[in-house]
Amino acid sequence: MKRDKVKVLFDELKAKEATVYGWVRTNRAQSQFGFLTINDGSTVLNLQVVYDNTISNFEEISKFRVGMSVKVVGDIILTPDAKQPLEMHAKEVVMLGDCPENYPIQPKRHTPEFLRDNAHLRARTNKFNAVFRIRSVAAMAIHSYFQSNGYLYVHTPLITCADCEGSDQMFKVTTLDMNNLPKADGKVDFSEDLFGKQAFITGSGQLQGETFAMAFSDIYTFGPTFRTENSNTKTHANEFWMIEPEMAFCDLDGLMDIEEDMLKYVIKYVLDNCKAEIDLCDQFIEKGLRAKLEAIVNSKFVRISHHDCIDLLLNSGKKWEFKPSYEDDIAKEHERYITEHFNGPVFITNWPKDIKAWYMKVNPDNKTVAAVDLIVPISGELMGGSQREENLDVLLNRMKELNVDPEPIEWYLDTRRYGGCVHSGFGMGFERLIMYLTGVDNIRDVIPYPRTPKNCEY
Amino acid sequence: MKRDKVKVLFDELKAKEATVYGWVRTNRAQSQFGFLTINDGSTVLNLQVVYDNTISNFEEISKFRVGMSVKVVGDIILTPDAKQPLEMHAKEVVMLGDCPENYPIQPKRHTPEFLRDNAHLRARTNKFNAVFRIRSVAAMAIHSYFQSNGYLYVHTPLITCADCEGSDQMFKVTTLDMNNLPKADGKVDFSEDLFGKQAFITGSGQLQGETFAMAFSDIYTFGPTFRTENSNTKTHANEFWMIEPEMAFCDLDGLMDIEEDMLKYVIKYVLDNCKAEIDLCDQFIEKGLRAKLEAIVNSKFVRISHHDCIDLLLNSGKKWEFKPSYEDDIAKEHERYITEHFNGPVFITNWPKDIKAWYMKVNPDNKTVAAVDLIVPISGELMGGSQREENLDVLLNRMKELNVDPEPIEWYLDTRRYGGCVHSGFGMGFERLIMYLTGVDNIRDVIPYPRTPKNCEY
Repeated sequence: MKRDKVKVLFDELKAKEATVYGWVRTNRAQSQFGFLTINDGSTVLNLQVVYDNTISNFEEISKFRVGMSVKVVGDIILTPDAKQPLEMHAKEVVMLGDCPENYPIQPKRHTPEFLRDNAHLRARTNKFNAVFRIRSVAAMAIHSYFQSNGYLYVHTPLITCADCEGSDQMFKVTTLDMNNLPKADGKVDFSEDLFGKQAFITGSGQLQGETFAMAFSDIYTFGPTFRTENSNTKTHANEFWMIEPEMAFCDLDGLMDIEEDMLKYVIKYVLDNCKAEIDLCDQFIEKGLRAKLEAIVNSKFVRISHHDCIDLLLNSGKKWEFKPSYEDDIAKEHERYITEHFNGPVFITNWPKDIKAWYMKVNPDNKTVAAVDLIVPISGELMGGSQREENLDVLLNRMKELNVDPEPIEWYLDTRRYGGCVHSGFGMGFERLIMYLTGVDNIRDVIPYPRTPKNCEY
Repeated sequence: MKRDKVKVLFDELKAKEATVYGWVRTNRAQSQFGFLTINDGSTVLNLQVVYDNTISNFEEISKFRVGMSVKVVGDIILTPDAKQPLEMHAKEVVMLGDCPENYPIQPKRHTPEFLRDNAHLRARTNKFNAVFRIRSVAAMAIHSYFQSNGYLYVHTPLITCADCEGSDQMFKVTTLDMNNLPKADGKVDFSEDLFGKQAFITGSGQLQGETFAMAFSDIYTFGPTFRTENSNTKTHANEFWMIEPEMAFCDLDGLMDIEEDMLKYVIKYVLDNCKAEIDLCDQFIEKGLRAKLEAIVNSKFVRISHHDCIDLLLNSGKKWEFKPSYEDDIAKEHERYITEHFNGPVFITNWPKDIKAWYMKVNPDNKTVAAVDLIVPISGELMGGSQREENLDVLLNRMKELNVDPEPIEWYLDTRRYGGCVHSGFGMGFERLIMYLTGVDNIRDVIPYPRTPKNCEY
């Protein structure tokens, strides 16, 4: 079937005959003629189709309902003085799939809750059409950035038996009959499970990623990630996608350069490839979104140490719910103040080592680690990374201090035994990025079918 | 740290000063000078570094061991008459990370089993360096193909509570303490689990993908997939990646056009972007690989019905282990014969409905469905797809016949209620593709960290 995509028609702006397949968004029929708006999902822009009573099935068309799938053939006419730059004058309009009057997605405002309860239909609304297109294009931007810079895309495994993250935070996976588990010594006998031992789904591919950075220098992962948190906030989901780049021969400054460069690239790519979608988000979700994103592309991100951040917060004269502390994490209210203060993304570096992970490079002060969080207005933390501790002895000591068993990850420690080097990496939650790019403030509304506690429909 | 990548040096072929970070692959030292080969993973090609005793630490360099990480600074000299088109004349060579003599990856032939047992180090060998680079570039090719054709990349959920595939083939996931499961009426009480009911990891995103195709017309998924098969063949893994495109307003012929176009695009993209890697696979893994792939790009794929295939097999005069049957699947030996007979990829269409899935479009003969498998030499089935049954009544009848409960997937059936249309989709196992592109004959050797029964290391 020859199909002209509505996006291509808008991109080309060419008067020609076209054949479009899509779904009816509105139908306004008068006695002699009528207007259909058709969306085919290739863009949020609708094709306006003018039909008149010279078409043999005019009466039938004038009764077409919202949601029907149709084929329209006609002439594309450029209308430079109208709101829409083009319209179609129909020669043929055929219904392909019917849609009843009680179709839930009518051309009116629906509440977010109603649309979450109809997640399988909400992509047919303008808002979600725009959000999921931006999500798709942003994913492409990420691949494009890393591949054009020579990075290797590595698919790290999701199923793991290495319990090094603490199994409390990981889903257990099994092929055993859970109603009839085999037992040995009163405990589940996982030797009968598919892998011969207990297995989990992992929350990170970093450790495997590091082993590949020691072969390819620059690698990235991009895949789904799972957390068991029983948390019902606007920024938590139990299943989400994450990007984890890892670079050999790269220190903390180099890491920040890459994070900044990548974010600007992705934003620019989305601005260039999702014009109509960003406009829609700007108009209906976050006023000023486009200006915010354009400003980022041309800005220089601030880099400030955790210590100096605390100074700034303490000297702000503000009343804080959580008192800023040189030994502690930075609360949401602090993040907000800092990004507002600097009016843009901020790298916070050199965090107190006691609140950070065991694999991070210990600084010469022996109090802080070479970690960096990138915080942005509204979304908060967008990326978290660090230089990794490449010294095996220091690393083993840190593991001991923090009760991390080296035995299941001897393979990981080999990266420090065989040609180790200064290296760094970061993780970026993909949904956080999409929230930042669209202005959507609830993670449930940037994931096609979100999984949150007590919510695993579709 | 300013880094010149070896790939860029080979691509540019420019005489200039360069700074390269990488790992020692070989070191041949003589009394006055020596040769280091350095690999930085940006390409399988090694940089040959010539050093001599004008460098202050010459003695030290001449003892550098395989596997050490180093920094080399020097002049790139073009050597058009030599085997390698360029080499570096070193001015500075510094060890960054030591590597002991017992480093497992020495410049010699290792068995596949040895390398599987050292999966965290095998990417440092030429073969795996090439295979995983091709894997990465092929992934990019897939995204590039679909995005440049206006498809939406959709992240369908992995965790699901809809048991419609048959839970036997799905991993169960839980946050419950498996040694102390809550019970109600003698069965596990999943109401206490994170999602309030029993959850699985899915083996396909097709159903959710179809709902998105009804909003965006053309969509694709690309993500990890899980099967619990307790099967130890060369082509089965319990975790692998899959691509599942789904197109509205597309029939079986259109589907084959897309499959063929996509495969040729991906092959061409890999040939263009992985020259050295394909050469290496051609030389060491599958002789004639490059010629095979180049031939595909310029071929026209054969399209033949299942019925005509059986005719062909029965009339071949061959003795078959499995007798070809008009009602049955096609065995490996048959696939091999067919691809050899046509000397290339073959689409087999219109399969007996009794051996295919419930969602496939029933043909007017009421005996076959509009399904298509693409089979290729060596790898066998590379893609499987079908036109989907868009008629709700026919679909519900098929579900009844095949004992598929409609209740948990009413949302899916809505795609047939609200503006349904002719649509089609296919699935492609990404590892099968990589095996085809590299000539590697064991799926364990195209996955960074493979998961197979009793094997879940790293």
